[in-house]
Amino acid sequence: MKKLLLLNGPNINMLGKRDKNIYGSFTLEELERDLASFVEKSGYHLDAFQSNHEGDLVDRLHAADGEYAGIIFNPAAYTHTSIALHDAIEAIGTPVIEVHISNVHKRESFRHVSMTAPACHGQIVGLGKQGYMLAASAFINNF
Amino acid sequence: MKKLLLLNGPNINMLGKRDKNIYGSFTLEELERDLASFVEKSGYHLDAFQSNHEGDLVDRLHAADGEYAGIIFNPAAYTHTSIALHDAIEAIGTPVIEVHISNVHKRESFRHVSMTAPACHGQIVGLGKQGYMLAASAFINNF
Amino acid sequence: MKKLLLLNGPNINMLGKRDKNIYGSFTLEELERDLASFVEKSGYHLDAFQSNHEGDLVDRLHAADGEYAGIIFNPAAYTHTSIALHDAIEAIGTPVIEVHISNVHKRESFRHVSMTAPACHGQIVGLGKQGYMLAASAFINNF
Amino acid sequence: MKKLLLLNGPNINMLGKRDKNIYGSFTLEELERDLASFVEKSGYHLDAFQSNHEGDLVDRLHAADGEYAGIIFNPAAYTHTSIALHDAIEAIGTPVIEVHISNVHKRESFRHVSMTAPACHGQIVGLGKQGYMLAASAFINNF
Amino acid sequence: MKKLLLLNGPNINMLGKRDKNIYGSFTLEELERDLASFVEKSGYHLDAFQSNHEGDLVDRLHAADGEYAGIIFNPAAYTHTSIALHDAIEAIGTPVIEVHISNVHKRESFRHVSMTAPACHGQIVGLGKQGYMLAASAFINNF
Amino acid sequence: MKKLLLLNGPNINMLGKRDKNIYGSFTLEELERDLASFVEKSGYHLDAFQSNHEGDLVDRLHAADGEYAGIIFNPAAYTHTSIALHDAIEAIGTPVIEVHISNVHKRESFRHVSMTAPACHGQIVGLGKQGYMLAASAFINNF
Amino acid sequence: MKKLLLLNGPNINMLGKRDKNIYGSFTLEELERDLASFVEKSGYHLDAFQSNHEGDLVDRLHAADGEYAGIIFNPAAYTHTSIALHDAIEAIGTPVIEVHISNVHKRESFRHVSMTAPACHGQIVGLGKQGYMLAASAFINNF
Amino acid sequence: MKKLLLLNGPNINMLGKRDKNIYGSFTLEELERDLASFVEKSGYHLDAFQSNHEGDLVDRLHAADGEYAGIIFNPAAYTHTSIALHDAIEAIGTPVIEVHISNVHKRESFRHVSMTAPACHGQIVGLGKQGYMLAASAFINNF
Amino acid sequence: MKKLLLLNGPNINMLGKRDKNIYGSFTLEELERDLASFVEKSGYHLDAFQSNHEGDLVDRLHAADGEYAGIIFNPAAYTHTSIALHDAIEAIGTPVIEVHISNVHKRESFRHVSMTAPACHGQIVGLGKQGYMLAASAFINNF
Amino acid sequence: MKKLLLLNGPNINMLGKRDKNIYGSFTLEELERDLASFVEKSGYHLDAFQSNHEGDLVDRLHAADGEYAGIIFNPAAYTHTSIALHDAIEAIGTPVIEVHISNVHKRESFRHVSMTAPACHGQIVGLGKQGYMLAASAFINNF
Amino acid sequence: MKKLLLLNGPNINMLGKRDKNIYGSFTLEELERDLASFVEKSGYHLDAFQSNHEGDLVDRLHAADGEYAGIIFNPAAYTHTSIALHDAIEAIGTPVIEVHISNVHKRESFRHVSMTAPACHGQIVGLGKQGYMLAASAFINNF
Amino acid sequence: MKKLLLLNGPNINMLGKRDKNIYGSFTLEELERDLASFVEKSGYHLDAFQSNHEGDLVDRLHAADGEYAGIIFNPAAYTHTSIALHDAIEAIGTPVIEVHISNVHKRESFRHVSMTAPACHGQIVGLGKQGYMLAASAFINNF
Repeated sequence: MKKLLLLNGPNINMLGKRDKNIYGSFTLEELERDLASFVEKSGYHLDAFQSNHEGDLVDRLHAADGEYAGIIFNPAAYTHTSIALHDAIEAIGTPVIEVHISNVHKRESFRHVSMTAPACHGQIVGLGKQGYMLAASAFINNF
Repeated sequence: MKKLLLLNGPNINMLGKRDKNIYGSFTLEELERDLASFVEKSGYHLDAFQSNHEGDLVDRLHAADGEYAGIIFNPAAYTHTSIALHDAIEAIGTPVIEVHISNVHKRESFRHVSMTAPACHGQIVGLGKQGYMLAASAFINNF
Repeated sequence: MKKLLLLNGPNINMLGKRDKNIYGSFTLEELERDLASFVEKSGYHLDAFQSNHEGDLVDRLHAADGEYAGIIFNPAAYTHTSIALHDAIEAIGTPVIEVHISNVHKRESFRHVSMTAPACHGQIVGLGKQGYMLAASAFINNF
Repeated sequence: MKKLLLLNGPNINMLGKRDKNIYGSFTLEELERDLASFVEKSGYHLDAFQSNHEGDLVDRLHAADGEYAGIIFNPAAYTHTSIALHDAIEAIGTPVIEVHISNVHKRESFRHVSMTAPACHGQIVGLGKQGYMLAASAFINNF
Repeated sequence: MKKLLLLNGPNINMLGKRDKNIYGSFTLEELERDLASFVEKSGYHLDAFQSNHEGDLVDRLHAADGEYAGIIFNPAAYTHTSIALHDAIEAIGTPVIEVHISNVHKRESFRHVSMTAPACHGQIVGLGKQGYMLAASAFINNF
Repeated sequence: MKKLLLLNGPNINMLGKRDKNIYGSFTLEELERDLASFVEKSGYHLDAFQSNHEGDLVDRLHAADGEYAGIIFNPAAYTHTSIALHDAIEAIGTPVIEVHISNVHKRESFRHVSMTAPACHGQIVGLGKQGYMLAASAFINNF
Repeated sequence: MKKLLLLNGPNINMLGKRDKNIYGSFTLEELERDLASFVEKSGYHLDAFQSNHEGDLVDRLHAADGEYAGIIFNPAAYTHTSIALHDAIEAIGTPVIEVHISNVHKRESFRHVSMTAPACHGQIVGLGKQGYMLAASAFINNF
Repeated sequence: MKKLLLLNGPNINMLGKRDKNIYGSFTLEELERDLASFVEKSGYHLDAFQSNHEGDLVDRLHAADGEYAGIIFNPAAYTHTSIALHDAIEAIGTPVIEVHISNVHKRESFRHVSMTAPACHGQIVGLGKQGYMLAASAFINNF
Repeated sequence: MKKLLLLNGPNINMLGKRDKNIYGSFTLEELERDLASFVEKSGYHLDAFQSNHEGDLVDRLHAADGEYAGIIFNPAAYTHTSIALHDAIEAIGTPVIEVHISNVHKRESFRHVSMTAPACHGQIVGLGKQGYMLAASAFINNF
Repeated sequence: MKKLLLLNGPNINMLGKRDKNIYGSFTLEELERDLASFVEKSGYHLDAFQSNHEGDLVDRLHAADGEYAGIIFNPAAYTHTSIALHDAIEAIGTPVIEVHISNVHKRESFRHVSMTAPACHGQIVGLGKQGYMLAASAFINNF
Repeated sequence: MKKLLLLNGPNINMLGKRDKNIYGSFTLEELERDLASFVEKSGYHLDAFQSNHEGDLVDRLHAADGEYAGIIFNPAAYTHTSIALHDAIEAIGTPVIEVHISNVHKRESFRHVSMTAPACHGQIVGLGKQGYMLAASAFINNF
Repeated sequence: MKKLLLLNGPNINMLGKRDKNIYGSFTLEELERDLASFVEKSGYHLDAFQSNHEGDLVDRLHAADGEYAGIIFNPAAYTHTSIALHDAIEAIGTPVIEVHISNVHKRESFRHVSMTAPACHGQIVGLGKQGYMLAASAFINNF
């Protein structure tokens, strides 16, 4: 089962258009392509999915159950409010690593709390596009 | 109008797969089938709908307006955060009974608050699959 | 052990005299009589007890230990403040279902918290006199 | 119905023994006798009752329903925590004036909140024994 | 020094025009006239002052220092926010009784806190125009 | 680019059916038609979109980027909880004015906070259907 | 009664001198003159008043009672703390629309709460000088 | 006056029956007997009293005034909520040591606060049955 | 522009009369005279102003704009609540040093917060009359 | 392993010099000597260590692991803030009893919370020097 | 400057001895050795330092300024309380990545807040020993 | 005893290297030298000590007891969290003035609270290096 899933939440499709000071200048397409290349070097295949819909992300997590070695998930704005995503992560057997591009602890206080992190295996924050690579490495190296 | 609507929220489709200590071992299909049988004994028909999308649940509540004797609704994770569902329940004339399979008061503190309950007729908590039957009985017996 | 205990807390003896918009027009006597008839149909006997004294309710819970198939308990005002009742429910082996006549979630915010619910098996809220019947059904049907 | 009820809560029986800086040096017996004399001048009879039991105070309020022109009530420590007394006052038709001997607003912060005052007609705070007389005057003068 | 001061805060000049359910139908003029008559029966003179200006009320309290047997003060809206009035009451030797016409504990939660009460001798709440008479009696009877 | 976008959030499709004391008796269709007529007088075209889905509203905001002179947005229930909408508004260059039909400050306390307003240009509250016209005027007059 | 009142609170007299990033470069005189011209086009007369004194604003609201079709009020800093202004607005029959020049929701958290808004008819935030014009339009168009 | 009083609050009569992981396997009878033996070795007599009634505990504290060298008091659940017990302890001259069998700081957060401890001489927590012996020693050794 | 302004807020005119333990025994007149002498030694002139009116203090700050090398300001009770003074200080170019005679951090918790300090250049607390001299020195020495 | 460790935190070396009303007049040297004598009577040896450095206390706890029958620990000021000490206590196998000389519940509210107590075996509060003896007894008597 | 610094905070020296469910079974020595090997493969040298003293960690951060390509820092218990470490990280030019071995979001609520993260470049949580490797990779790959 | 002690807390040794916008460009060495010169003019000797260790600062305060006319103390980051320093200041007889270089009230909210100030004689905030001189003056002039 040498497959990984990349899951990105709301507004991540605006990467490269939105505030570049915070998120850098790469686009979602570049992120998905670069991460796919990265994991292929270790013989892994990457599936990628982005949605602005909380329900779509829940559905995709359910569908991923048992299909992947790990899920790299940036829940973006839903990180701070979604109990539904928390429960979806808990409901499946596949381990999830939460990734945030920016250092959320430097931003508004409502971004300091994560509803999803307690259900995840781990969390990588503030390391930009590389954070996704590191999460992939964690899965590839079996933690 | 001898019809009832069963509405289930996010992750309820994972019943039977997810933590059985908390939710028991029955599946959503069994729940829907058993409740349908139960209400048929009193001459009622049951429509059932489950979604992981908050917006779908709002839409379904609107569509139910004036079509049912009552709605048996487990908003699951959205219980604790959704003002949209609160407003949808208030916006329609059909009475709603909120049901939770597990005793939410024994779990994380973010599950102790219900945003939807103030808009509902009543609430049944922690009685497993039977909680749905009791809610149906409440409607059938006219409260 | 086909016996059930009905336990009512403070001010429930004023039912029928007090604000009928909130609690309906039935009296405590009618409630006790109607519930007794209801459970007799299933071959159960009902003992009923009401007190305005927190300590009496604790005492009665202790005495009930091992004597009943279940306890239907409306702790009324003590619901929101009594750790003593919480501990008494935890101290006995008999399952308890908490019942509230009115939908406490529509009322003052100090009624939205239950100190006793985490120690109970389940909770039925806002379904009037019928809420007691449903709780009895839950015990009779073995949940 | 020219009768008034004086109701005193927990530890008021210790008046005259307890911290005299805060409560003055009069005893409960003197308070009851002096208030009885005071109301008799206006042709009223006074019944007096003190208890350290929350439930006794609830019971006495119920029994007073319809029997008195007014109730002068110092709930003492229960002021700050008792929803049961709040509900008992609301459950009866007789108006209640809450009295505190000391100025509770000068003391610990847990004494600054009154659970019972919202159910009462009015409140007199910090005027010592005379506060009871003033409450009686309020009833005698029909507010 | 058989003189008392009646001090009324913001919006009390609107009495009789403003929400009569809450404040009754008497005007400020009637209140001042009736209280003057009331205290004259005991040989006291009443000075009366009303202002919508926090600073005016502070000034008037300072000017009253040593001139009156007591001050009957309804700080109205400033009750809940004014540290300046708290300090002014503390800065003078004359005792002050705080009066509120309506039962503030039945209203919005921001009216449940009094910044001025800890500096006052006592407080009378919710007894309408009579509350002022009772406060005057307290001073006349030397508490 | 003389185009404006009208965006309405959850339950706004129930206008005219839902509590008319709060929202008035006009329907969503009337609102959209009246606002379209209003802006046409100034040579503007109006596109209108309503959804009960948070994700749809995020998607529509993204699609609107660079296409409109301004967006008139009533996020309804999502106002108070949606960080995703906050981020979507921030992610696009088009100015947004938030509109609420009712005066949210008179209602439940959970409606007093706006997660979306800090990302908007301005906010108009409590002026009914006319609030939408005023927001349109603001865009047409270049603020 | 084709008259409107413009009421501005503390520090608004410093407009044009104070932080222009936040408030723009217009002065109070320009604001008053421009708004007067604006309402005259619809046959209305504008009275304007500014004060740094909370009490003056209360006085002016009282004096305005029954004299104007509407009041356009920017309570500025008093917005967030003044119960006296809240009560003054409630005490008069004339409708009030609250206006803020800057988007208070983008600024310090103590500016996110409005004590006055619950007593007003509506609120316009962050639309600069034009916000006053829009409030006037709302009155002129009868909402 | 070589007498000590042992006072136990609600549910302590269930010792030995209730969760033995938390409270150990000794019964109330064993506790009373063992503590009596322990203090007799130092020539002291022990009176013991247990009640589930807050009012009984208040009454017993009053009756103990001046009769004992010290009071060993486990207020159990009332520890965290009872101002009445706080006031009763303050009202008497006899020193009180509060005892808890389990380490309340390891349990639910509502058990971390003690309303009674500020009125006591000292507090012993989490040392099981021996905690009572240590409290007795403290009195016997004059602290 | 060798001029300094001394600004004192509410109740500071009671210095020397009010609680001398907290504020010392000097009067406002002595303070103003002593500080004038002190700054004259460095060739500065002192203007002094005291008011119990928040609005007067705002007016005086506005009038001081550009007229003084610095403002020594004890906002007294308004320190803890006045956003109007915060904004007035921000609105002018003249630097302000906040002074408190007593150590506010040793007193009631509502005195631990300063609304004005974030708008000031600095703050001197608890150093009595000398605190004013030190603030003057700071201005004279150009900080 | 008949050895006990006495560990005292910051400022305990000032005993006898510091506020004697709160802590009594004994010095740290006397405390250490008296406790050593006390435990020697039961055949135990006492090691004693005091430091004002949080890190030293962590180091000493680590070094004590497996070396003592028990640790008597007064973390003093660090009680209320130190997660490092909490974790150090949890990291070792040796049981710890927390001791406070004064009744912390009678003092500032920041002393009412203990970060270390949840990791300890038990806690003894307010019994002066004797509290240390009682803790030693608890270890010697095997709890 | 191909050097990295590994900094570990309080109790990390107990790794392998302390609760292995949470932290795994590796020791600090193994961690330091394995990380040194790991970075050497990329031509980097690793310096390692562990201390239980907050001040030592501050000192070491200062000394590291300008000496390393990056600092891999697990502040352990000090994460949640240390402003001194926050300021030390901000005071130096070298980027810091915060690492936690366990998923702190699954543990006590006091571990959910990080005082140091806002001053760091990024954060890696819950990925065990591998988290350190990933942080090193981030520095080696220039983020 | 014409000696003063200058005590500086964590990260103050980084002055001149760290964010110069906030702290200015002077170094710790310059500060110590300049303050020594300043006090020598009045015939005082200055001892200076800086540490990043909370325990060192406690130790130094203890050692200073009775040795100095006054202590000028900038506890820096420990200001906001250290009860140990609060207690150390209280434990000694020498008066302490707390100094902060920057205006902490303009910075993060966790810097608005001072744990040490209630134990100090006074506090000087935001006046840069001169704040230390002013504190010295206060001691030299006997306050």
